[in-house]
Amino acid sequence: MIFLTKDKDSQGKYIYQQIYEEIRESILKGRLKPDEKLPAKRTLADHLNVSTNSVMNAYEQLLAEGYIYTIERKGYFVEKITQFINQGDSNKYSLPNDLKENTFDKEDLLSLSHMTSNISLFPFNEWMKCQQKAIENHKNELSEIIHPQGPYIVRKTISRLISLNRGVICGPEQIVIGAGTMLLVRQLMGMQNKNTIIAMENPGYSRIYSLLKNMEFTVHPVQLDKKGIRIKEIEKVNANFVFVTPSHQFPTGEIMPITRRIELLNWASVDDNRFIVEDDYDSEYKYETDNIPSLQSLDRNHRVIYTGTFSKTMLPGIRISYMVLPPDLLRLYHKHYPHSMQSSNTLNLFTLHYFIENGEYSRHLKRMNNHYETKRKILTNELVTYFGNRIKIEDIPAGLHFLAHFQTDKTYEEIEENAKHEKLEVYSIKRFMLKSQDHPKGWISLVIGFANILEEKIPEAVKRLYSVLIS
Amino acid sequence: MIFLTKDKDSQGKYIYQQIYEEIRESILKGRLKPDEKLPAKRTLADHLNVSTNSVMNAYEQLLAEGYIYTIERKGYFVEKITQFINQGDSNKYSLPNDLKENTFDKEDLLSLSHMTSNISLFPFNEWMKCQQKAIENHKNELSEIIHPQGPYIVRKTISRLISLNRGVICGPEQIVIGAGTMLLVRQLMGMQNKNTIIAMENPGYSRIYSLLKNMEFTVHPVQLDKKGIRIKEIEKVNANFVFVTPSHQFPTGEIMPITRRIELLNWASVDDNRFIVEDDYDSEYKYETDNIPSLQSLDRNHRVIYTGTFSKTMLPGIRISYMVLPPDLLRLYHKHYPHSMQSSNTLNLFTLHYFIENGEYSRHLKRMNNHYETKRKILTNELVTYFGNRIKIEDIPAGLHFLAHFQTDKTYEEIEENAKHEKLEVYSIKRFMLKSQDHPKGWISLVIGFANILEEKIPEAVKRLYSVLIS
Repeated sequence: MIFLTKDKDSQGKYIYQQIYEEIRESILKGRLKPDEKLPAKRTLADHLNVSTNSVMNAYEQLLAEGYIYTIERKGYFVEKITQFINQGDSNKYSLPNDLKENTFDKEDLLSLSHMTSNISLFPFNEWMKCQQKAIENHKNELSEIIHPQGPYIVRKTISRLISLNRGVICGPEQIVIGAGTMLLVRQLMGMQNKNTIIAMENPGYSRIYSLLKNMEFTVHPVQLDKKGIRIKEIEKVNANFVFVTPSHQFPTGEIMPITRRIELLNWASVDDNRFIVEDDYDSEYKYETDNIPSLQSLDRNHRVIYTGTFSKTMLPGIRISYMVLPPDLLRLYHKHYPHSMQSSNTLNLFTLHYFIENGEYSRHLKRMNNHYETKRKILTNELVTYFGNRIKIEDIPAGLHFLAHFQTDKTYEEIEENAKHEKLEVYSIKRFMLKSQDHPKGWISLVIGFANILEEKIPEAVKRLYSVLIS
Repeated sequence: MIFLTKDKDSQGKYIYQQIYEEIRESILKGRLKPDEKLPAKRTLADHLNVSTNSVMNAYEQLLAEGYIYTIERKGYFVEKITQFINQGDSNKYSLPNDLKENTFDKEDLLSLSHMTSNISLFPFNEWMKCQQKAIENHKNELSEIIHPQGPYIVRKTISRLISLNRGVICGPEQIVIGAGTMLLVRQLMGMQNKNTIIAMENPGYSRIYSLLKNMEFTVHPVQLDKKGIRIKEIEKVNANFVFVTPSHQFPTGEIMPITRRIELLNWASVDDNRFIVEDDYDSEYKYETDNIPSLQSLDRNHRVIYTGTFSKTMLPGIRISYMVLPPDLLRLYHKHYPHSMQSSNTLNLFTLHYFIENGEYSRHLKRMNNHYETKRKILTNELVTYFGNRIKIEDIPAGLHFLAHFQTDKTYEEIEENAKHEKLEVYSIKRFMLKSQDHPKGWISLVIGFANILEEKIPEAVKRLYSVLIS
C-alpha cells in the first residue's frame, strides 16, 4: 500500500521519490518478495492517480540502484536482496562526546607564536588581479591535470626568483613544487634507502624530525656549537643526510658562518651518497644587512637539496613550497614518482607566477622587511625594559622569531599552564629539543615570534609574559 | 686592491656590494690571511674615495656571513676560513641533456582523457566574489596555521553538503580535508598496522594501488563480477580493508547494486578490524535518474571511510578532497597525527565555504550535469555511427567517462603509438589492470572521457580514434 502526498510532501519530496522510497522499503523489509512482479507502470499510475512519468522515474531509480530488474516486454521484477545481518543502531547517529570539538575562543588571545604572519599588509587586491589574469591566460592548463612538479612557467619564475634573491643555481626542471615543505621532504626521503642515516640540528624543527622517524629512518639529533651543526658529530654517527637551516637556524636564530658552510660542503663532497637538505624557511627576512646567500649557492658538487616556501612571505596557509633537486636525485624522482600529482592548487600557482612577474612579490617583501624590523626592535626593547637582567636575547636580526632566555624558577610545564591562563600563545624551546640537553639552572628559553602581534599590543603581551614567567 | 665603479656597476651592484665582494673573494682565495686586520672604516673610505657608510655596510655584511670578526675598539679581523676541498666546476652550471624538459606542443591535441574537466562553464566571477568575502571575513584565520583537518566552518559546510547530496551521515569533527585523495589515503593507511591486507577492485585506480604497494601493504587485486567486487575473493585473501568505487566503478563505470552493497557491509560488520574505503570520486554526475546514495549512507556499524573530492565538480587542480572517518579511526587519527598540517590552501577553503553556502556550487553542478549528459550522448552516438558493430559501449549514464570495447587486431602498444601520432589523448584499460585478466581476442577496451572535448570537435576526435584503432 503506497501513501502519497501530492506534489511535494513535507520533506520536499516529489511524487516519484515517494513511490521509489515506498517500494524500496518494501523490498528491504521483505514485504515484496524476490522475483515478484511489480504492477505495470500505467496500472500503478492509474491506481495512485499520478502520471505514468512519476512511476517510470521511480522504477528507473530502483533499477539503477539494483532493487529491481527488468525483462523486456514482460515488466519489472523484484531483485533477490541480501538482508543486513547487523543493522546496528539505525537511529540518527551522534558523535561520542570525547570526539566533539570545542571551538576555542581566541578573542583575547595574544600571540607570540613563531608560526603566524601579519597579513594586514598583504596586497589582496593585487593578488586578485593576478588571479584574474591567471584565469584568462591559462584556461587549458586549468582544465587538466598539470605537470607533477608544477607548471613549467611557474617553475621558471621561481627559479629566477631564487637565483636573484638566494643565489640558488638551478633550472626550472630541477624544481618540484608541493603543498608544503613536509610533503616535499616526504617525497624526497621516500626515494631514499631505508639504511639512510640522518643528522639533524638539535634543537631543530620537530615536525620534520617526527616525519623522518615515522618513515623509519635512523635520525640523530646533533648538538650545535657556536657555528652550528658539528661536523665531527655528523661523521661520528655515520650520517649521509644532514638537515640544516643555515640562514637562520630554527629555533636558535644563528646564522651559519661561511667557514662551517664550507666544512659542511666539504663533508658532503667526498661521497656521492652524502646530501645536505637546506631548509631556507624564512631567509627572506634579514634586517640591517643584505640577505645571507644560500648554502646551495656555494655548492659545486650537487650535494645540496634546497627547500623554500611562500608561507612566511605571503600567507601561512598558501601551501606553496618547492625543493630544488640535484641532477642525480631528479633522475631518481622521475623514476620513483612517474604518476605523482601536483599538490598545490593550480590557479594559485599561476596567480603566484604573475604576482612575482609583476614585481608585487618583491614590493611586498620589502614592505614586510621594514615592518617586521621595526616591530622586532620594539618588542626586544620592551622585553629588555621589562625583564632587565632576567632576560638574555639571542639578538640576530633575521627571520620572524628570536630565542630568548629568561631567569625564572618555573618549569616548562608551569609556564605552559600559566600561558594558557594568561591567554598568551608562546612556545618554549622544549618543543624543539629533539634530544634533551643541559641548560643553565634557573633559566628557561622561549622561541618568540613577532609576526602577528600588533604593535600597540606589545606592552600588554610583554606584561602577560612577565606574569607567566615571574609572578 | 679594490677597483670600484661609482654608484652602480654594470651589474647593478652598489658600492658597498662591490667592496663586500672584493674582500670576500680575497678571503676565500687566501689573499687576506686569518686574523689579518682590515683597514679602519674611515681609512678605507678615504682611500677609495667613498662614504664611510659604504665601507660599514660591506663590513657588516661580511660580519653577518662570518667572513670577518670584530673586537670592540680594536677593529675588524679576517676569520680563519676552511678551504673548499672539492670545488668541482665553478663555471655556470648547466643541466644534463636527459633531464631537460620538452615543452610539448598541445595545440592540436584532442583529449578523450578521463582526467580533465570542462571549465569553460565554471563561474569564475562568483568564485572571485566568494574569495573577496573570505578575505574580508577571515583575516585572523588567514594569518595563522589552521586546524589540521581544515577550518571547522568549512568542514561543517561540507558535512551538510554530503549529507544532502550523498546521504553521508557524519559530523564536521569526522571530516579531514586535504590536498587530494591520494594524500588522505596515505594518512588513513599510515595509521594502519603493516599486516593490513587490502583488497582492491581489478581493474581499478592504479595510482592508489601503487601508493598502497609503496607503503608496503599486501594488496590483492580482486576480479569483478556483474555486481562488482567479489565478496568470496575478499574473504579468500583474508583482506581486512577493501577499496571500492560503488557509485561508478573506476574504470568500468558499473554501479554496485544494493544487494552487493549489503553483502559488503555485512562482510565488514562482523569484525571491528574490517573497513571499506568508499571512493566517491565522481558520483555527483548521474544522468537520467537521481544520484545513487553513497555506501556510507547504509552503514550503521562505522565500517565505511568515505572519500570525496571537488576536483571533478570544480577544477581538476583545486586540490580539495576530504575523507569521513568513523569514530574509532578519528580517535586513532588524533593520536597519530598530533602535529600534521592542513595541505589545502586556507583561502580556497574559506572561498569554497561561501561558494557552497551561496548556492553557487549546486547551480554549477546542475549546469554541468546537463552539459555533460548532452555531450555524453553526442559522443556515444557518434561512436556507434562510426564504429557500427566494432564497438560495444558499457552504457551506464553516470560520471565523466565510460568504458568501450573495440574490435581491432591492434595491440595496446600499437594503439598508444598511433594515438600519439594522431594527436589524440586516450587511455586504455591496460593502465588500470592491477593484475592481468583474460579478455576476448580481437577486442580491446578504452576508458573514454568526454569532459573536455568540445562538442564541435567530437566528430574529429572519433575520426582520429578510428584511425588509431582500425586503419
